[in-house]
Amino acid sequence: MEGQNGKHKKFSVLVLVLLLPLISFVSVVVVKPSTGKNLQVRKGSTFKITIFADLHFGEDTWTSWGPLQDIHSTKVMSFILDQEKPDFVIYLGDVLTADNIPIANASLYWDQALSPTKDRCIPWAAVFGNHDDAHFIWPTEWFSDSGIPPLKCSSLISSSSGEDNCIFMGTTRLQLMNHDIGSSALSFSQKGPNNLWPSVSNYVLKISSSDDSESPVAYLYFLDSGGGTYPEVISTVQAKWFNSTAQEINPDSRVPEIIFWHIPSRAYKTVAPSGVINKPCVGSINKESVAPQEAEHGIMKALEARPSVQAVFVGHNHGLDWCCPYKKFWLCFTRHSGYGGYGNWTRGARVLEINEQPFSLKSWITMEDGSLHSHVFLSS
Amino acid sequence: MEGQNGKHKKFSVLVLVLLLPLISFVSVVVVKPSTGKNLQVRKGSTFKITIFADLHFGEDTWTSWGPLQDIHSTKVMSFILDQEKPDFVIYLGDVLTADNIPIANASLYWDQALSPTKDRCIPWAAVFGNHDDAHFIWPTEWFSDSGIPPLKCSSLISSSSGEDNCIFMGTTRLQLMNHDIGSSALSFSQKGPNNLWPSVSNYVLKISSSDDSESPVAYLYFLDSGGGTYPEVISTVQAKWFNSTAQEINPDSRVPEIIFWHIPSRAYKTVAPSGVINKPCVGSINKESVAPQEAEHGIMKALEARPSVQAVFVGHNHGLDWCCPYKKFWLCFTRHSGYGGYGNWTRGARVLEINEQPFSLKSWITMEDGSLHSHVFLSS
Repeated sequence: MEGQNGKHKKFSVLVLVLLLPLISFVSVVVVKPSTGKNLQVRKGSTFKITIFADLHFGEDTWTSWGPLQDIHSTKVMSFILDQEKPDFVIYLGDVLTADNIPIANASLYWDQALSPTKDRCIPWAAVFGNHDDAHFIWPTEWFSDSGIPPLKCSSLISSSSGEDNCIFMGTTRLQLMNHDIGSSALSFSQKGPNNLWPSVSNYVLKISSSDDSESPVAYLYFLDSGGGTYPEVISTVQAKWFNSTAQEINPDSRVPEIIFWHIPSRAYKTVAPSGVINKPCVGSINKESVAPQEAEHGIMKALEARPSVQAVFVGHNHGLDWCCPYKKFWLCFTRHSGYGGYGNWTRGARVLEINEQPFSLKSWITMEDGSLHSHVFLSS
Repeated sequence: MEGQNGKHKKFSVLVLVLLLPLISFVSVVVVKPSTGKNLQVRKGSTFKITIFADLHFGEDTWTSWGPLQDIHSTKVMSFILDQEKPDFVIYLGDVLTADNIPIANASLYWDQALSPTKDRCIPWAAVFGNHDDAHFIWPTEWFSDSGIPPLKCSSLISSSSGEDNCIFMGTTRLQLMNHDIGSSALSFSQKGPNNLWPSVSNYVLKISSSDDSESPVAYLYFLDSGGGTYPEVISTVQAKWFNSTAQEINPDSRVPEIIFWHIPSRAYKTVAPSGVINKPCVGSINKESVAPQEAEHGIMKALEARPSVQAVFVGHNHGLDWCCPYKKFWLCFTRHSGYGGYGNWTRGARVLEINEQPFSLKSWITMEDGSLHSHVFLSS
C-alpha cells in the first residue's frame, strides 16, 4: 500500500508537471507535405510497420487512475517497439481521449503518446479517431459539493496567462496535426487537402524500393473517418479524393495499396464472424459488435474498383482483432494498444510485414506479454 | 412568389454581409462591473422591464429560413419595445442557437439580437441559456454528395485570415459576455466571479429609488443555469455565491429580490399545472412538460430562506408562459419571444412593472399582435 501511495504521489507530480505549461498553446507550424523525406525498404530486409490503435492518452486526467493508464500504455508501446523493431509506426486514431482533457493544449498528451516511438528514432504517421478532437465532457459531479478539482481553470483566471485560456475547447484536428508535423522530422503525418475539411488526416505515403527510391513498393493511404466534433463518416469528397489520387499516382493499379482509418466502415458488419472466429477470418478476439461509421458515402466502392487494394486497417472496436476477406481485399481490426479506453483485453498491436520482391503483405498481432498470434497473409 | 424570391435574395445578401467579417474575432474587452452606471426609477413612474427569452438568433444560418426567422424576431422585439417602452430589457438566454452558427464569431448574431434594444437606447442585461455557447452540430448531409454549402470554411482556409479561423468552435460564454459588456455603455451585463466558472452570467443589479440613487428598490439577480458546453445546472458554488451576496448587501431581507435564469429548476415541475391553467397559477399556454435542470444543488433552498425573494423568471420551455406560486414566492415562465427555436405559438414577451412606494411587482405577457394578457401581482 505504501508503495502504491508513493506511486500515486509520483503520478500527481507528473500530472502537475504536465499541466503547468498551459500558457504555451499549440504551436501552429505549417509544414509542407514531406518532400525530401522518404520511406524506403532497407536492403535485404522486409519493411515492418507496427500499428498502435486506441491508446486513449489523457483519459480521466483529474484522477490518479488516468495518468497511471498512460504510463501503462507507454510501457506497452516501449516493449512492443523493442520486441518488433519496426521500420515505421502508425498511430491509428484515438491517440487521445480529448473529451477527458480539461485544457486547451491536448498536444501535451499527444506528445506523451508519441514519445516511445520518437525516443527510438522510428518514423511515424498518425490518423485521427473520434476521440482525438472530441469536445470536453464536464463531469456532473464537479457542479455539486465537490466542486472542480485542483487542476481547475479558475486558478488560471488569475494567472498571467489571461482568462481566455480558461476555455475548455480542446485542441482541433488542424492544430493537433500541425503540432504532430512540426514536432519532429520523424513525423510523416500530413494534413489533407483543404477541400476535405473538417476531415484532416487524409494523405498518402509511398514506400520505396530498396534499389530505387523513386520506385514504389506500396502506397499507404490514410483517411480521416471523422467523429468527435463532427459526424463519424468518410465523406463523398474524401472518396473522390482517394479515387482521383490513386488514379493519378497509380493509374494501372500496379502498385499495392494499403488503407488505414479509425472507425470501421459499414462493410465490416457484413464480414464480421458471429461468435468463434473461423476461417477464412483470422483473429483471437471477437468480443463485441462492429461499431461502424454513420453512413457509407462511396469509399468502399472506390476501394472495390481498384485491384491494387490489399487491406483496410481500423481500430475503434477494442474487443476485436480479426481480419476477414471482403470481396477482393481484407478488412482488419488492429487491437486495443492502450490502457486508456474501455475493455480489459490484454493489450497488443498489429504488425504488418511487407516483402518487396515478390510483393507480400503478412500480418500478426504482437502482445504486451511478448506472445505473437493470428498470423495471416493479406496480399492478393 | 416573386416578392418572396426578392425577399430571399435580400436575405442572402444579408447573410453574406453578416458572414464576411469573419476575420475579426470577438474583441476581448475586459470591463469592470458597471461602476458609475445606475438603474434608477424615474420620478413619478414605475420601473418597467421587458424580458425577451429564446430568440435563437443564428439558427439554420446556411438556409434562407434561418436568417428570415431572425428578421421576424427583430420585428417582434421592435414592436414590443415601441409598445411597452420599458426602462430596461432582460435577455433571458438562448439569445443564439450557437449549435447552428458555423463560424467562430457568434457575436455577430448576438449583436443582431441586441440591436432593437440598443437602437432605442434602452439599457439591458443578458443571462445565458443552453444554446448560447453550444458546440456547433454538423449537419450529416454536408458529408454526402451535397457537400458543405458556400458559407463553408474551406474558402476561408485560402483567405488571409489564416487556416485557424477554420475551427468550428463557436464563441465561449466568456468571450460572448466580454463582447456584450464592451459593446455599449447600455449593457448592464456582467461576468460573474471567477470561482463560479464555467458558469459566467452570475451577477446582481440594483434598481435605485427615484429619490435617492443609493437607496435600493429591488435587487435583480442573474444566474447562469448552464447547458451547452457543460451540464444544465446551477452549481453548489453558485448557490453559495447567491447566499453570501444577498446576506452581504441585503442582510435583513428588507429589499425585494427578483431572480432571473434560463432553465427552470426542478421545483418548477412541482407547481406545473396539469392541462388547463387554473388559479392560483396565471398564464395562457401550458403546452409541454417542464424541461428542468439536471440536478438541484441548493439554489432553491437558498431562495426559500429569504423572505425578500419575490419571483424567479425562466425561459427554455417555449410552450409555457405561466406563473405559479411556490412556497413564499412565484415561479414564472417568460414566453417564446423569437422565431428561431421550436414551436409556433404566437410570440411575446413578459413585462415586469415595479412600483416603488409601496413596493409592488406586477407582470403580464405582451404579444407580437399587440394584445396583453395574464396580468398577475407577484409581490409578497
